[in-house]
Amino acid sequence: MRNIKLFLEYDGTAFAGWQVQPEQRTVQGVLESALSQMTGEKVSLTGSGRTDAGVHASGQVANFKTETDIPLKAFNEGLNAVLPKDIAVLKAEETDPEFHSRFGAKSRLYRYQIITRRSPLLERYAWRIIYPLNREVLPELCNVILGKHDFTAFASAQAEVDNFNVSVTRAGWKDYGGVLSFEILADRFLHNMVRIIVGTMMDTARGHLKPEDMKRILESRDRTLAGKTAPACGLCLVKVEY
Amino acid sequence: MRNIKLFLEYDGTAFAGWQVQPEQRTVQGVLESALSQMTGEKVSLTGSGRTDAGVHASGQVANFKTETDIPLKAFNEGLNAVLPKDIAVLKAEETDPEFHSRFGAKSRLYRYQIITRRSPLLERYAWRIIYPLNREVLPELCNVILGKHDFTAFASAQAEVDNFNVSVTRAGWKDYGGVLSFEILADRFLHNMVRIIVGTMMDTARGHLKPEDMKRILESRDRTLAGKTAPACGLCLVKVEY
Repeated sequence: MRNIKLFLEYDGTAFAGWQVQPEQRTVQGVLESALSQMTGEKVSLTGSGRTDAGVHASGQVANFKTETDIPLKAFNEGLNAVLPKDIAVLKAEETDPEFHSRFGAKSRLYRYQIITRRSPLLERYAWRIIYPLNREVLPELCNVILGKHDFTAFASAQAEVDNFNVSVTRAGWKDYGGVLSFEILADRFLHNMVRIIVGTMMDTARGHLKPEDMKRILESRDRTLAGKTAPACGLCLVKVEY
Repeated sequence: MRNIKLFLEYDGTAFAGWQVQPEQRTVQGVLESALSQMTGEKVSLTGSGRTDAGVHASGQVANFKTETDIPLKAFNEGLNAVLPKDIAVLKAEETDPEFHSRFGAKSRLYRYQIITRRSPLLERYAWRIIYPLNREVLPELCNVILGKHDFTAFASAQAEVDNFNVSVTRAGWKDYGGVLSFEILADRFLHNMVRIIVGTMMDTARGHLKPEDMKRILESRDRTLAGKTAPACGLCLVKVEY
């Protein structure tokens, strides 16, 4: 049995997220269907994580098992030739039989982009905020979430997990020519975690919350205290490390 | 009579170019229609240049005259509220009565982007090239076009101009994390000029032309010797200086 690892990029705009759902166009669904057709087997694809509807990826990793002896390039060039233009395989590799793209992942890097003016060239990939932002509070808010914490307050109520502990290794905002870009690296992410963190930070930057509230919210483990969930379009899964 | 200057950004994908054409969705057409409705006058909008169908702009400049005393912000926030999401006004200014966005322009900066692999997140804004490219020839090709030359060989046969002299002040390629980006600054641009230059450079980088052909083609003033016209989607009008 071969175990094939795929590196994927997709524009999440027209997908109902990663995970297969009945009657919906999903990234996993489109890929499994193309792979099943190509191999003649019922292929089951595992992703490093389930991106939500509208969330993009420039470095998603997935794997699947197959009995076929189709050459590897079929899963790269071959797959790209049949995939719709909003999904691409960046690389395909043979990997060891034990490799599991979800359980084996040591860290994930997400990026969230914000624009503060209308931008037809960027708004598919960014959240446009029209209220004034005090950016000076952002480094302090990032410091609060660094390290290992229980992130219950920053997880959607639908998160189905045993525990809410997450180790955040890196979190910071940069301004790239007017585009505010947040990067966060952690061992795992809870459902909607990045979007709730960003929403809460923006609520603080606009003055609806005080900078010292961030720590209080984190420690409360109470989702209702955090800010709103930032829109999906600004989020992108950039990298998964094993 | 007021003279209003607009700085515009647009995603050219769904437009049949800048210039009004019957039965077509054009940037000028959409803007003139919104401005006419707003002012109650028949507004005529002049652009710094006519971008082709599919070409983008992050810094197009245009101007129009009006008798109304509508506050300036109507032409900024107000216009943005009614424009479709693929056009945005970045800034609106009162300017002197003599200002003409086309004849007054001293230079224009265009950028052309190329990707060498499939990229769902970039391919709206880049030309994807699948053949191997020898990038080492590119600086030499840029040097050939620097300075004032007759660019007849690099203009579409439809170019309706008195002379084909263009002064190129800057021309160069850079690699931004796998995206090949060409920037060219000149006093004016002939129809399809950037796209024919890029097409010819890529024909050279893939070995269909020799590096020394660039100078020969330029001097020939013969369009049939230059390479093919690169696709519109990779091109963006970045800045116009007055």
